[in-house]
Amino acid sequence: MVDAKASLICLDEETTSDVEPILTKVTKKSLPTPTTILADVLNNDVPTTSTGVGVGNNNSVTLKRAIDDDDVPALLDHTPSYSGNAINGNLPANDRDNAESEPIFRVRSRTAASSTPNYESLDYEVCENMLFQEEQRKSITERFSLRKDIIRWIIFIQIGIITALIACTIDIIIEELSELKYLFLMNSVESNVPKSDITGGDLVVPFLYWILLSVLPVAFGAAMVTYIEPITAGSGIPQVKSYLNGVKIPRIVRIKTLAVKAIGVITSVVGGLAGGKEGPMIHAGAVVAAGISQGKSTTFVKDFRVFKAFRDDHEKRDFVLGGGAAGVSAAFGAPIGGMLFSLEEAASFWNQNLIWRTLVASIISVFTLNIVLSTYHGLNDFTFTGLFNLGKFDQPLKFDYFELPIFMLLGVTGGLLGAAWNSLNTKINGFRKRYIPWKFGKVCEAVVVAMLGVTLACMMIYFINDCRPLGNDPTIHPVQLFCEDNEYNAVAALWFQTPEATVRSLFHDPPGSHKILTLAMFALVYYVLSCATFGLNVSLGVFIPTALVGAAWGRLLAMVTFYLFPETEFLHPGKYALIGAAANLGGVLRMTISLSVILMETTGVETSFFFPLIIALISAKWVGDYFNEGIYDTQIEVNHVPMLPWEPLPQYKGLRAREILSSPVVCIKLRDSAHYIYNVLKKCDHNGFPVVDDVKGVRRSEGRVCGIVLRSQLIVILLKSLYVENSHFWLPNTSIQTFRDVYPRYPSIKSVRKLDDKINYTVDLAMFMNPSPVRVNAHDSVPRIFQIFRALGLRHMLVINNENRIAGIITRRDFIYK
Amino acid sequence: MVDAKASLICLDEETTSDVEPILTKVTKKSLPTPTTILADVLNNDVPTTSTGVGVGNNNSVTLKRAIDDDDVPALLDHTPSYSGNAINGNLPANDRDNAESEPIFRVRSRTAASSTPNYESLDYEVCENMLFQEEQRKSITERFSLRKDIIRWIIFIQIGIITALIACTIDIIIEELSELKYLFLMNSVESNVPKSDITGGDLVVPFLYWILLSVLPVAFGAAMVTYIEPITAGSGIPQVKSYLNGVKIPRIVRIKTLAVKAIGVITSVVGGLAGGKEGPMIHAGAVVAAGISQGKSTTFVKDFRVFKAFRDDHEKRDFVLGGGAAGVSAAFGAPIGGMLFSLEEAASFWNQNLIWRTLVASIISVFTLNIVLSTYHGLNDFTFTGLFNLGKFDQPLKFDYFELPIFMLLGVTGGLLGAAWNSLNTKINGFRKRYIPWKFGKVCEAVVVAMLGVTLACMMIYFINDCRPLGNDPTIHPVQLFCEDNEYNAVAALWFQTPEATVRSLFHDPPGSHKILTLAMFALVYYVLSCATFGLNVSLGVFIPTALVGAAWGRLLAMVTFYLFPETEFLHPGKYALIGAAANLGGVLRMTISLSVILMETTGVETSFFFPLIIALISAKWVGDYFNEGIYDTQIEVNHVPMLPWEPLPQYKGLRAREILSSPVVCIKLRDSAHYIYNVLKKCDHNGFPVVDDVKGVRRSEGRVCGIVLRSQLIVILLKSLYVENSHFWLPNTSIQTFRDVYPRYPSIKSVRKLDDKINYTVDLAMFMNPSPVRVNAHDSVPRIFQIFRALGLRHMLVINNENRIAGIITRRDFIYK
Repeated sequence: MVDAKASLICLDEETTSDVEPILTKVTKKSLPTPTTILADVLNNDVPTTSTGVGVGNNNSVTLKRAIDDDDVPALLDHTPSYSGNAINGNLPANDRDNAESEPIFRVRSRTAASSTPNYESLDYEVCENMLFQEEQRKSITERFSLRKDIIRWIIFIQIGIITALIACTIDIIIEELSELKYLFLMNSVESNVPKSDITGGDLVVPFLYWILLSVLPVAFGAAMVTYIEPITAGSGIPQVKSYLNGVKIPRIVRIKTLAVKAIGVITSVVGGLAGGKEGPMIHAGAVVAAGISQGKSTTFVKDFRVFKAFRDDHEKRDFVLGGGAAGVSAAFGAPIGGMLFSLEEAASFWNQNLIWRTLVASIISVFTLNIVLSTYHGLNDFTFTGLFNLGKFDQPLKFDYFELPIFMLLGVTGGLLGAAWNSLNTKINGFRKRYIPWKFGKVCEAVVVAMLGVTLACMMIYFINDCRPLGNDPTIHPVQLFCEDNEYNAVAALWFQTPEATVRSLFHDPPGSHKILTLAMFALVYYVLSCATFGLNVSLGVFIPTALVGAAWGRLLAMVTFYLFPETEFLHPGKYALIGAAANLGGVLRMTISLSVILMETTGVETSFFFPLIIALISAKWVGDYFNEGIYDTQIEVNHVPMLPWEPLPQYKGLRAREILSSPVVCIKLRDSAHYIYNVLKKCDHNGFPVVDDVKGVRRSEGRVCGIVLRSQLIVILLKSLYVENSHFWLPNTSIQTFRDVYPRYPSIKSVRKLDDKINYTVDLAMFMNPSPVRVNAHDSVPRIFQIFRALGLRHMLVINNENRIAGIITRRDFIYK
Repeated sequence: MVDAKASLICLDEETTSDVEPILTKVTKKSLPTPTTILADVLNNDVPTTSTGVGVGNNNSVTLKRAIDDDDVPALLDHTPSYSGNAINGNLPANDRDNAESEPIFRVRSRTAASSTPNYESLDYEVCENMLFQEEQRKSITERFSLRKDIIRWIIFIQIGIITALIACTIDIIIEELSELKYLFLMNSVESNVPKSDITGGDLVVPFLYWILLSVLPVAFGAAMVTYIEPITAGSGIPQVKSYLNGVKIPRIVRIKTLAVKAIGVITSVVGGLAGGKEGPMIHAGAVVAAGISQGKSTTFVKDFRVFKAFRDDHEKRDFVLGGGAAGVSAAFGAPIGGMLFSLEEAASFWNQNLIWRTLVASIISVFTLNIVLSTYHGLNDFTFTGLFNLGKFDQPLKFDYFELPIFMLLGVTGGLLGAAWNSLNTKINGFRKRYIPWKFGKVCEAVVVAMLGVTLACMMIYFINDCRPLGNDPTIHPVQLFCEDNEYNAVAALWFQTPEATVRSLFHDPPGSHKILTLAMFALVYYVLSCATFGLNVSLGVFIPTALVGAAWGRLLAMVTFYLFPETEFLHPGKYALIGAAANLGGVLRMTISLSVILMETTGVETSFFFPLIIALISAKWVGDYFNEGIYDTQIEVNHVPMLPWEPLPQYKGLRAREILSSPVVCIKLRDSAHYIYNVLKKCDHNGFPVVDDVKGVRRSEGRVCGIVLRSQLIVILLKSLYVENSHFWLPNTSIQTFRDVYPRYPSIKSVRKLDDKINYTVDLAMFMNPSPVRVNAHDSVPRIFQIFRALGLRHMLVINNENRIAGIITRRDFIYK
């Protein structure tokens, strides 16, 4: 490995033409005291070797660029950013000699960067530097740890309450507005189509009203999402999932995002798009969690001076998991389901205590939701039952063993339909991305889809003649449209309500509430509509439309079978609608445990019915997995988010660390000059720099690794002038809190003034660097180091050779692209 | 660190007096070809330094001793084994100079070892040596990976089926025998106490019969457990939990253990001890899983030649998790509950795929159980419902919001009672361990407790006059004892059945089935009895007695409140019995999520009732945690099992690796002589040896680390004569399977014949060693390296200095004792 070392040329070995003059100027300047140390330091900075290297030689720089939050468009807008830049660093050892001869160092400009954004990693790793150790020592004496634990519980409880309140608000607004909208439309229909006229009538006016009442909110919502905060598009689950995996998704947990998301989801559900409010609730919960736990809002420049100890990525991420769970729980009124959803779908790191807190947040959330909604609905006895989101089944659902194969068959159908849906949706979104890049186009597209939905619904109502006798239907406002007196229009009943209410109808309407043709058309139309809707620039979840499609075809299958074999008794249509919904959800989302629990909790079925649900879900998942991935994972993949999978990718088996590392690496000495650090930060966009010791001359990259320091830390050091020379000023009142205060929006290096007067000062990193970076050997196998990287949620992993000198650095991307 | 290096004196630097003569002899012998290599190797073995060290200087040897399975008594029999031997290795760096001057090397004799046994770690880490890599490479071409996946699924399904069959068998036998026993006793009562005699009668004969029918099975069971397989004592959950954490519990997953456990649990439940069959079922599932997944039985010397790829600790441990889940599921008929139980209580390592497989095993298990039990009970329609273990509630349980504080209060009570129970039980067991060390005493003790139970029950029946009218009671065989005609004795009804059936009665008996005095006495007696029972040398779980006590006082509280305020309507006694059971379980076991789901699944209550359950459980857990740990964790701690907690222990915060490592370390060269390896294995009992390279002379410990090799691998190498000199014989047909075939009972070094003819041969470890051992720096912080150790389930962690030379080794124990 000693030979390979020679190829590791760092920024410090070669200096670019515009740096060199400054350096020469500096050495000529008068040196402040203590001169001896500084002279040493500065001398090291003067270039001694010139290995014929160009402007730079670190081709992995582009990968680790710090992105200013505001430059980056939404997750769904990203064009693939990774175009093989890192491959150069992955050359096998024997090819590296060639690479050495012409290294490429391109520090791309910020303008260029914004068009092909990269995702940064979160610093999930706790930086155990001396300041941190000091806090730890203090905390042991002060019973700080217990206090911190209690505060953590309080925060989780607050998260539960506030998430539930937001969920209630969204819930109630959607319900009221939808009620108003559909009542108005029904009145319009009734007044335009005379009751006596069964065969025809003028539907044009109601149709136009309907279009108007759909287009207005949708256009408003889509415009908000597109122009104000594009990250709020879609359900938000893939984004939250990526965040929890350790990928920094810009602006995902800001208050503005929450506001836009809430208004966005209200407008689109009221507008009648094929989507639900459940996914966005998870995102809302995540934002609430991130906001509360930090005790300050950067947007409103307000620091409440509480919860200061939780200001780092590690703590924040745990809270976000709790918030997500509280969000699902509030969305469905399902505490266990919410917790399991978080675990199954979102979480990448688990821990017994974390599950605990997550559960408590979920329970508090559901409890708050129930109190508020009970009060709102005037259920004065405050009984818990009756608030099942998808309606409680009147009698216990029973099943016979011979039905299990049927459930399995439904599962297989769900798997096939789901896989097809995912693939179709991905194609549609690809098309969108390519052909509708302009913002206005995106808004128009949402409007067009909304109009398409209204038109299809109107056509169904107009052409299908499905009249049912009044009386045993649970529809609150039946429309007589084209029907006899004492009858109502079953097609209109399906369409004149929110999708969630339609799922309820399909589960609980008595047998014989619909024609076979009605349901078949409805399932088909909704399948296509939901597929076209998910991926629009609006805030909408995919859960409810998927369940709706499943419920429709599940019920349909039961009806067809009953039509063919009228003597069969077990064919309770609501039961099959439930199984169909489960199967379709399994096929699209590929979750099992949490979905079955959520469905159980939202419909109040008996626990014994868990078995059919899970059979359908597992069949659906297995069949679906044969074809493609779940919709959330697909979205993550399409957007090139560097998610770390649970297991290393198969093509990495048998590789060694040296085959995937990025090199050369820019290093910083344990005591280095402020000037050098300033230049490094200016020059390259790495986020972590190995700290080296035992350096001969300026060949920093040949020193022995003794720690790692983050870009953000270095910037704070420069900003606050934490130099050796003026240490008597800052040393007494500098603690880990100094660094936490700046979290999470670290200033860029641009905000550091030129170091004119402090240019000869020295920075001693011993106090600030993380002295226990994870180091692996260049010969270590990739699956092993992947495990370490994944389990610890690392951002940087230093690869060292047998002599503890740096061989390269491995970041998240190195495990994902090859 | 170079200075510190000087203190690392390995076995190779100094040789003991009885080794040296052999070495000298060897060098005088005629050398076989290739002489040159061998001469080098052997010369290195000749001692060149003599640092005045005694017999040995590795004080961590005693910690890493390989224990022969058969020498170790059961988990519960262990006297604390750890007595500060390792502390010497943990000296801070500046104290080490003193340590160096008189190192202590005590290789204790096996006899000494058996009295103070240590636990070994499992090799959860996959050894990615060249043989493994080769298999990996092959597997990519052969679609071996998919095949392996499918086989893995098949194994999980088999585990589910077989576990359920065993559970059914135990279930049915217990039910039948108990029925016979209690019918006989009731008949005896009826015939000895004349129906007309209300005030008195002769209970002596039935009492003696009862004693006899309790003592016989209990004595038999206790004798089996004590004399045949002591590891089967207790519930088995702490043992399985320790195993899954990576601690090798000898004989825990053997077929003999399963047989003894099954018979043990049948005899003790039939004998009427205060225990349940649920805990042992988990253990049974674990054994089944370990057995099936290996495709061979070492006990019966039978290799089925299947599932060969799964023969290592890593795979086996995953299967054991699935087996445990299947066991709980079968015990309760609760698939989600079973899976969550495994996750919450047992598992130490989680992974999405693993959860998946675990769930499938649980579902298959419950399904099988239901088919078999449905058939057995003659439920020909095969409906799923009706097999709830703890009985289905007739009408949905409802609750009002104002009851929530009451539930919380019950939870607090449960927490207090549970904490007291745990502490009392621990004291009783400590007393037992000290004063009843003989095997016969243990059997007698079980008999005494059984007799105590019968006596207390008889006294209750005799002294408490609680007669209830026949008719609305669900008791199948009511006893009239001391009661009028048309009445039955409610006290006898409580006692004349298995504990599980009593829980059912308390949940479902109509209001007014018992007197307040009856229940109060019953709760008290059972509380004491269960406390005395858990820890006896019998196979019994703690779940059912705990639930029973809770149900009794829960129902009691409802009755007392109703007695005080007769106009309250909400006081459904069954509901409060259920909440009481949950609270008591929470107080003793400290689980929440899985317990609430299990209670829901076994009683078929509505999902909305989850809320009260979890409120009670969480309150109980919080209150209980204030005082002590859950009963399983307490048992693990009392037995000094080196369980790795989820977080590093607080006293390790701020420490560095060099402060906890064990040193000096015995190293082996990459190419070392067979003779040296043989001697090392003979001399010391370490289980992992760093492999070093770049060695000057014999100072092996100063070489650079290039891998680690396990004791078991070295023994296989010696046994199979895998030497460099005869490589043309074995090289073609040696693969990773050669090593797997010997798993899990690796032969001891004693079984290797003296190397007379091969004494000069060389072993090249390049092919066998794990080339990617986890290495950490001596300066790394302990919390960080703990995370790595925990997340990867390591057995050995090499600590290196800045020059990649060995500084020490860290094993499980170094994180636990300080």
